[in-house]
Amino acid sequence: MNNIAAQMQAHLDNLTKPRGSLGRLEDLVIQLAVIQNRVPPQITKKAVYVFAGDHGIVAEGVSLYPQEVTLQMLANFLAGGAAINALASGLGPGGLEKIAPGTTGAENATTGAAGSGNALTGAVPGPQAAWDLVAVDAGVAGDTSELEKLASSLPPGRRFLNKKIGLGTANFLHQPAMTEEELMGALKAGEDLAEDAQQQGYDLVAIGDMGIGNTSTAAALLVASGFPLETIVDRGTGIDNKTLAHKQQVIAQAVEKHRPYASPLDILRKLGGYDLAMMAGLMLGLRQKNIGCIIDGFPVTSAAYMVCSMDRTVRDFLFAGHRSKVRGHSPVLEALGLEPILDLGMHLGEGTGAVLAGYIIELAVKTSRTMASFASAGVSDSTHAEEKY
Amino acid sequence: MNNIAAQMQAHLDNLTKPRGSLGRLEDLVIQLAVIQNRVPPQITKKAVYVFAGDHGIVAEGVSLYPQEVTLQMLANFLAGGAAINALASGLGPGGLEKIAPGTTGAENATTGAAGSGNALTGAVPGPQAAWDLVAVDAGVAGDTSELEKLASSLPPGRRFLNKKIGLGTANFLHQPAMTEEELMGALKAGEDLAEDAQQQGYDLVAIGDMGIGNTSTAAALLVASGFPLETIVDRGTGIDNKTLAHKQQVIAQAVEKHRPYASPLDILRKLGGYDLAMMAGLMLGLRQKNIGCIIDGFPVTSAAYMVCSMDRTVRDFLFAGHRSKVRGHSPVLEALGLEPILDLGMHLGEGTGAVLAGYIIELAVKTSRTMASFASAGVSDSTHAEEKY
Repeated sequence: MNNIAAQMQAHLDNLTKPRGSLGRLEDLVIQLAVIQNRVPPQITKKAVYVFAGDHGIVAEGVSLYPQEVTLQMLANFLAGGAAINALASGLGPGGLEKIAPGTTGAENATTGAAGSGNALTGAVPGPQAAWDLVAVDAGVAGDTSELEKLASSLPPGRRFLNKKIGLGTANFLHQPAMTEEELMGALKAGEDLAEDAQQQGYDLVAIGDMGIGNTSTAAALLVASGFPLETIVDRGTGIDNKTLAHKQQVIAQAVEKHRPYASPLDILRKLGGYDLAMMAGLMLGLRQKNIGCIIDGFPVTSAAYMVCSMDRTVRDFLFAGHRSKVRGHSPVLEALGLEPILDLGMHLGEGTGAVLAGYIIELAVKTSRTMASFASAGVSDSTHAEEKY
Repeated sequence: MNNIAAQMQAHLDNLTKPRGSLGRLEDLVIQLAVIQNRVPPQITKKAVYVFAGDHGIVAEGVSLYPQEVTLQMLANFLAGGAAINALASGLGPGGLEKIAPGTTGAENATTGAAGSGNALTGAVPGPQAAWDLVAVDAGVAGDTSELEKLASSLPPGRRFLNKKIGLGTANFLHQPAMTEEELMGALKAGEDLAEDAQQQGYDLVAIGDMGIGNTSTAAALLVASGFPLETIVDRGTGIDNKTLAHKQQVIAQAVEKHRPYASPLDILRKLGGYDLAMMAGLMLGLRQKNIGCIIDGFPVTSAAYMVCSMDRTVRDFLFAGHRSKVRGHSPVLEALGLEPILDLGMHLGEGTGAVLAGYIIELAVKTSRTMASFASAGVSDSTHAEEKY
C-alpha cells in the first residue's frame, strides 16, 4: 500500500463507524485519493463526455437501428431529452425534479406521452446540473450544422464539441476503418479533451458512447486482441440465430482479413472507430493529469482495454461504473481486473452506468470528508474495531 | 401485470432508449408506480428513519462494542457526524460539499484528523438536505436529556423523535425481551411514524438501525422463525471461533427457552427489540399509506421478514437497498424474494445502504419523468426495439 493509500485508510479508520464497514465505498475513496495524490480526495466539478461516432460496418446489417439514430441522439443530448441528460443533471436540493405541469398524478396516467418532451420544454434543471454533459461529435455521418446552431444556446452544464474526424469510419470488412492520419487525429483530439477537462476543473470524468454499430467495432477490437469470438459477440436479447451467426461471421472475417496486427494501435486503426480511439486518447490524457475516469459499458470498456494494452498504468485511473447486460462486457472487465460498482442489468450506453456509479463515488468521498472522528464525537471505539457486532 | 405497471412500462418503452435498456432502473420505477398508484411515480420529499434501541442480550457478551455506543451514536446523528448524515444530506448543486477550511489538499494529508469534526462545526449542509434524517429513540438505555436539548436546535432536515419504550429490552436469554404492552407500544409508535411520514410529505422512506446487540436480536428472531442457526449467526469479519460458538450457543439456548411460539408477534415479543418492533410497525403503516420503503441491512431486513410473516402484501412495498456483508442477510433477502439494488460489501447500518440505494431509485424516477419520447425528439425507433445493436 502506498503512502497516500495508507493515510487515506487511517483517515477512514478514525471515523465513527466500524472499520471497513463502508465496504467498496472505502476502496473507491482510497483509489481516488491515490489518483489525486490527496487525502481525502475531492470532487468539485465533474463531467461525462459522450462520444458520438458512426461505423462503416453497419453496411453489413449488424445493427437493428438505422445509422441516422446516431445523429438524432446527438441532437437529443443537446436538447436535453436523453437518459444521460436525466442522470447527469442531478437531483435538486429537495429531490424533486421540475417536470411539466399535468404529468403528475395517477389521474394523468397515460401510456407514454405523459412525461415526454419535458426535457425539450426546458424542464430539465440547467443551473443545478450536477454533471456537465459534454457531447462530442467524434465522427457522425451526417450534417451537423443544425447542431452547431443549438450549441450556441445550450444551458449551463451542457456542451457540444465538434471533434469530427470524418463522416463515419470505413467499412472494416473491406478496408481499414481508419487511415493512420485519422487514428492519430482521433487520439490527439482525445488528449485535447483531457486538457479541456483540466481547464474546466473536472476532477472526475465519466465516458459514454453513442454510435450505431459501435458494439460490432468494439467486438472486433477484442477478437483481434485474442478474446474468443463466442464470448464477445453475443445475441444480446433480440438478435435471432441467423442475425447472430451473420454478425459473428462478419467480425471473424474482418479480423482475419487484417492480420497480422503489429500492435494495439494497429488493431485500433484497422478495426476501431473515431469515437473509441478518441476515448482512448482521453483516457491516456486523464492519466497524465491525475484525473479519475469512470468507464461505462461494452464499447467504452473495449476502448479502455486497448489503452491498457498500450499503457497498463492507465488501469489504476479507471473505475468500472457498472456491469452491462451485454454479454461481452464481463470478460473484458475481468481481463482488466476491474470490478464494476453497479450491476443493474443496464445496457443503454451514453455513460448512463458510469454517471450513476459516479453518484456512489461522490457520496463515498463526501462521507470521507464530513464524518466525525471517534474522538470529536465522543464515541467509544471497539477494541476489536473491525467487527460491528 | 396490473394496469399501472402496464401503463408505466408503456411510458418507459416510449422514451428515447432501447426498450428495457435501463434494466433494474425500470423495474424500480414500475414498482414505485404501483405502490403510489401513479404514472410516473414521484419523489418530492424523502426521509430515513434511524431507530436506536438497546438490547438486554448484550449482557451475555455477544457484542464487541460497549452498550453506551448506542446513545453516543444517537448523539452523533443529531450533531451531524455519522455516516448516515453524510449520505442523507445529499450532494450540492455543484457536487462540492462544504468542508472546514484546511482539510483539502495533499499538503494537509493527515492520518485521520483532517476531516474530522467538520460535521460538528456546522459544515454539513443543512438546508440542502436531500433526505430528512429522523433519529428515533426507540428504547436507548441511557439518559437522553442532553439529546432533548440538542433536538430543539437542529438544522432543517434533521429531526429527533422520542419514542422510547424503555431503557433497553430485557435479556431474552432469561426472560421475554418485551412485555405484551411494550410490544404493542412499539408497533403503535411505528405506525404513528408512518402517520408522521405522511404528514411530512415523504413519498419514499428508508429505514436504518443503530443498536449494539441488534444483530443478535435479529438472528434470534430468524432462528425462531425456522432459519438454520449456522446460516444466520456468522463470525462476520472479527469474531474468533470461541466468540462465535458462544454467540451461537446463546441464541440457540434463548430460542429453545421460549418455545413454543404462537405467532410471528409472539416471536417478536419474546426475542425482539423495541427498535425492530417499531420498524415493523412503520412498515405496516407505510404499506397502508402507499409509501414505498427501502430496507437496509440485517436487522432491518429481519424486521421486514417478521412483518411479511404477518402480512405478505407488505413485501411489494419494500425495496432491498443493498446486500450487506453480514452473512445472515442473504438468506433473509432470498426468503423475502427481494433482490438488493446495491452489493458493495457494506455493513455499517444506520440506513446507509438504504439511502445510497435511494439515490438510484430517485435517479431512475427522474429519468422516467424527464426523458423525451421517440416522437418528441424525432429519433427513429427500431423495429426490433428490445435490442440495441
